[in-house]
Amino acid sequence: MSKYCFGIDVGGTTIKCGLLSAAGELLEAWEIRTRLEENGRYILPDVAETIRKKIAEKNLDKDEIAGVGIGIPGPVNSAGEVPVAVNLHWGHVNIVKELGDLTGLKVKAANDANVAALGELWQGGGAGYQDMIMVTLGTGVGGGIILDGKIVAGSHGAGGEIGHAHVSDTITEACNCGGHGCLEQIASATGIAHLAQKALAATDEQSLMRNHKNVSAKTVFDAVKEGDALAIRVATEFGECLGKALAVFAVVVDPQIIVIGGGVSKAGPVLLDYVTGPFRANTFPPCRDTEFALAKLGNDAGIYGAAKMVL
Amino acid sequence: MSKYCFGIDVGGTTIKCGLLSAAGELLEAWEIRTRLEENGRYILPDVAETIRKKIAEKNLDKDEIAGVGIGIPGPVNSAGEVPVAVNLHWGHVNIVKELGDLTGLKVKAANDANVAALGELWQGGGAGYQDMIMVTLGTGVGGGIILDGKIVAGSHGAGGEIGHAHVSDTITEACNCGGHGCLEQIASATGIAHLAQKALAATDEQSLMRNHKNVSAKTVFDAVKEGDALAIRVATEFGECLGKALAVFAVVVDPQIIVIGGGVSKAGPVLLDYVTGPFRANTFPPCRDTEFALAKLGNDAGIYGAAKMVL
Repeated sequence: MSKYCFGIDVGGTTIKCGLLSAAGELLEAWEIRTRLEENGRYILPDVAETIRKKIAEKNLDKDEIAGVGIGIPGPVNSAGEVPVAVNLHWGHVNIVKELGDLTGLKVKAANDANVAALGELWQGGGAGYQDMIMVTLGTGVGGGIILDGKIVAGSHGAGGEIGHAHVSDTITEACNCGGHGCLEQIASATGIAHLAQKALAATDEQSLMRNHKNVSAKTVFDAVKEGDALAIRVATEFGECLGKALAVFAVVVDPQIIVIGGGVSKAGPVLLDYVTGPFRANTFPPCRDTEFALAKLGNDAGIYGAAKMVL
Repeated sequence: MSKYCFGIDVGGTTIKCGLLSAAGELLEAWEIRTRLEENGRYILPDVAETIRKKIAEKNLDKDEIAGVGIGIPGPVNSAGEVPVAVNLHWGHVNIVKELGDLTGLKVKAANDANVAALGELWQGGGAGYQDMIMVTLGTGVGGGIILDGKIVAGSHGAGGEIGHAHVSDTITEACNCGGHGCLEQIASATGIAHLAQKALAATDEQSLMRNHKNVSAKTVFDAVKEGDALAIRVATEFGECLGKALAVFAVVVDPQIIVIGGGVSKAGPVLLDYVTGPFRANTFPPCRDTEFALAKLGNDAGIYGAAKMVL
């Protein structure tokens, strides 16, 4: 019976590492630097080395370790292979084989947003559920689909890439993906700031948002909490867009719960107020009572989800 | 080792029945009437009776029968329970238990559109794949999501109800579901006929479609094949709508293949020409090479898919 597992969340700057109990307790968390030099060739050896050191430091028995789960910022297929991960300077990497050979432990790999979703299902906002859509509102919009407790990786490693759902025909700027009118362009922190800037430029109306040189998603929702009419209109526009998009995703996989995370979700429950109305008004009647929750694990979601994959 | 299985596809008028080999050969197909009287209470006993007769007629050994799969026109959860099936006059029915008790065989139940999708994956347009979105363009728009070879039933039995994806904010007529702007209102046979009627009313332009008193989806695609300019514009409008919707569904579950079936798909490969362009132009780059195919099994898809559930 395994007692421990490792959860690794690889980012472009740091690699978050966690030692967890099989029951889901985060026993220890630490970080190492992501070395991008030479096409990121040191990343997996560095991960193996920090795991080896932790096993030695804690005097763990390898037989008691279920394995290593790892989240990667890029597409990962269900076999744990990465075709390309731009942020890590990687071409094709077979993570499961390479990290498995380096550590002698069982390895599972998945996309970082999908892994974070699994973490939230296990110990966060989706705890107690099996079928979940998670949407992460940060600089971009990430997502993860969990069905029957398992990540939907997708046949091109693009399962849950809901930030790139086409939701608008009127946006002329290009999205990071090269497309136009992606959900990410409206519902991310960046997108909300754009909505606010446009709203402020279009009127002379008083607004608390004008007290800030750089309007951010936080500026908007702080002003919403003060009853600011213009900020409320911006939040309404954001909520209409995200709520309608989630209403479509819901008729595809019909989840029990939708969990909203990422920096924007720090606005708190007020955020849900703007999203759930348009969701319920636009989804298929049997899906209307889908639950909504905010994410709970913050930046640790990836560590938890990665660990859960090997349990 | 099981040699046989039964596939049952319950409709509002007839119940299609099939005896199949475990290898997927349809050995015999027949129909019985759907008796709706007394809240459809005779439906499952009638199914059990026709199976009993077939077993006797063919002198089959019950140990050689894998079971009975059954598709139902209504939501079915993953446990095989129907909360309500309006077309059968049913309230709550536990199909797996009731039909299992009546037949003494293993029973699996699912929504009819989902079952048809599984049939197409097994022996039809999606053969050889594991991850598929099927969209059925008939009087309405049905759908089914298959991941890892299994139906996504959904937590409210609404998995794959993609006909009720909200795709338009400008449609004022109500959809059958009570909503407004559902995919079904544009991309179904009925929806395409509406688009054509609107296009014809808006101009005096010559069109082969004017030779028909009642313009149907078939009228439109027959005219498209003759190079009719107005019909081509209608097909383009339909293709833009369906292609963009499928582009969104694809970033949720990232299938290997999208299969298009239903009466409208009888138009043939020309239909795909109008859908794949807008799909590829609007989906996330890794999903652009998703395969497309037409359904192959026609009205037998439900029998095949139902049988596959018990194998």
